[in-house]
Amino acid sequence: MDAAKASGADALLVTHGPDVRWLSGFTGSNGAVALIGGRAVLFTDGRYSEQARAESGDLRVVIGKKFAAGLAVEWLIERGATKCGFDARQTTVAGLETMRKALPKSMGAARRGFFTATEGLTARLREIKDVDEIRTMRKAATLGCELFAGLQGQIQADATEMDLALELELQARRGGAEGMSFETIVASGKRSTLPHGKASFQTLPKRGFVTFDFGVVVDGYCSDMTRTVHMGRGSPREHAVYDAVLEAQRAAVAAVAPGVTCGQVDEAARAVLQRAKLGKWFSHSTGHGVGLEIHEGPRLAAKVEQVLEPGMVITVEPGVYLPGEFGVRIEDMVLVTDVGGEVLTAASPKSWTEI
Amino acid sequence: MDAAKASGADALLVTHGPDVRWLSGFTGSNGAVALIGGRAVLFTDGRYSEQARAESGDLRVVIGKKFAAGLAVEWLIERGATKCGFDARQTTVAGLETMRKALPKSMGAARRGFFTATEGLTARLREIKDVDEIRTMRKAATLGCELFAGLQGQIQADATEMDLALELELQARRGGAEGMSFETIVASGKRSTLPHGKASFQTLPKRGFVTFDFGVVVDGYCSDMTRTVHMGRGSPREHAVYDAVLEAQRAAVAAVAPGVTCGQVDEAARAVLQRAKLGKWFSHSTGHGVGLEIHEGPRLAAKVEQVLEPGMVITVEPGVYLPGEFGVRIEDMVLVTDVGGEVLTAASPKSWTEI
Repeated sequence: MDAAKASGADALLVTHGPDVRWLSGFTGSNGAVALIGGRAVLFTDGRYSEQARAESGDLRVVIGKKFAAGLAVEWLIERGATKCGFDARQTTVAGLETMRKALPKSMGAARRGFFTATEGLTARLREIKDVDEIRTMRKAATLGCELFAGLQGQIQADATEMDLALELELQARRGGAEGMSFETIVASGKRSTLPHGKASFQTLPKRGFVTFDFGVVVDGYCSDMTRTVHMGRGSPREHAVYDAVLEAQRAAVAAVAPGVTCGQVDEAARAVLQRAKLGKWFSHSTGHGVGLEIHEGPRLAAKVEQVLEPGMVITVEPGVYLPGEFGVRIEDMVLVTDVGGEVLTAASPKSWTEI
Repeated sequence: MDAAKASGADALLVTHGPDVRWLSGFTGSNGAVALIGGRAVLFTDGRYSEQARAESGDLRVVIGKKFAAGLAVEWLIERGATKCGFDARQTTVAGLETMRKALPKSMGAARRGFFTATEGLTARLREIKDVDEIRTMRKAATLGCELFAGLQGQIQADATEMDLALELELQARRGGAEGMSFETIVASGKRSTLPHGKASFQTLPKRGFVTFDFGVVVDGYCSDMTRTVHMGRGSPREHAVYDAVLEAQRAAVAAVAPGVTCGQVDEAARAVLQRAKLGKWFSHSTGHGVGLEIHEGPRLAAKVEQVLEPGMVITVEPGVYLPGEFGVRIEDMVLVTDVGGEVLTAASPKSWTEI
């Protein structure tokens, strides 16, 4: 709300699902949270009356017949709101127009100026996880490690990428996950050069890398990890590239600490790969925040000045992709602590693994 | 483009993924299609250069370093565009601002008026499927029926809803689906009163309904079907409700024909349930279009005046949910033909099934 005030608003309307959930606990669709003068209220419709009251604790819940944002707008006007912030990144042009239509006609031309664009106010608050959130994310990260450990026996040259992805997903659900954080990546042989190589029906090669990048959702929170293993004996070049990526990943993890900029963590990984003459093939950024959404702030990319703060949970995932040859990526989830970084996916070894 | 012209635009910018795919064939992220004077061009970035050329046939592809919509805007300006339509439902307020920033500064105040809001122009074209799309959707619908038939042996009182959902999903992938259209619904016993009861860890009841609502994605196109079966012998009341829902569903399917309004199809189902004194518990609309997205136009709801046209693929899915008791929903996918409606999920029986 303070951040909204900085933009001249005396009220804030939040409609993005994960933001609504974070502010209110409510997990249904068609929810909106309105904030004004230190008060917050959750709006939704009749389908969710029981659920909303059960999930949102002490927060006041208003059930209506209309779409939630419209109810919230009417309520804010009744409470004397004159300028209301909304998230420009999460609101469509048509959605904003519908919100405007919920304003009383008597406002006349003032309707146009009532809404003022803000960007990611709640998303920025969500970057810092509290103890409960950290406990849940620890659970999700640990489940991810257990799943990958359990998969080891099935990584064989006659399995398809899809077999392994399905087995991971099956065990994830059996292990209590609500689902996967994103479509599971299993990219083997030349497909390991695809940073986003979703599992295909390709059979694993007798020799070559296999990259697994996956995550589980536990109580709404996402995990995210990547391991790359090698089928059969690796060539000296494969070893050299793997070692360089691992060194880069470790350097970036070691750089994580409160007060350090995201750009500095990215640079720690990038510098190692540049020294190894592989910088050109590290074609993406080093990592991202993770939480209720798989991609959240902060963004760990070159020159990003945002500073890491205790309670942030980020991924550190440098990779090298040699066109037509092979690719390697290694990723951990890291909690920013008061003094440095704690790897939440430490239970899964990341040294060279030959199968 | 004609529709865009009606809104005073001489150009159109399309950025919504499924719309871009439908217009160009391109399936990657960060794609944009610009249309002006009978020409269409696909814009994307270097990650997708090979893929975009392979997927987009004769369409011209422009690869750039920037975000695709920005490239498209520059290209349109060079070609003399003066007013460009965009989809207000698919563009965020922040996204529109970023598009505006790609306009040359020399335009001055004209930058503000360059973009003009349209809604769902491509989405409306997508409602009518061509022969290739119908062939693919037929495949998806048939796979759905096969999967449900294959599941019959496993619907047992000791299975959990999750076991059945996972088995469906596993077999779907083995059967060639890229994934599920949406999170699989398996709602048993009292949970069958939840229209969106995602599979839980609850064990199936010895007696009571189990609703399965699921779909598969084949070559990008979604299927969608619902069947409700009964564990053990049903009570007279359960039979009566099931019969009413089935009669309502058949009546709505029978009403499908070109020239009929969506509201009339909805009314056909609703009238049956009202006569059975169950209308109050049919708490949602009768169906929706389906295609590259699981929810597309048209919307089959009360009073919707839109007329069905040959080539539309819609769902017909009335349901009755008796609070604290049980729920029943039956859903088919229906292709609107030149003369009526063809049920694409006809291979799956929908008469009362006792297990």
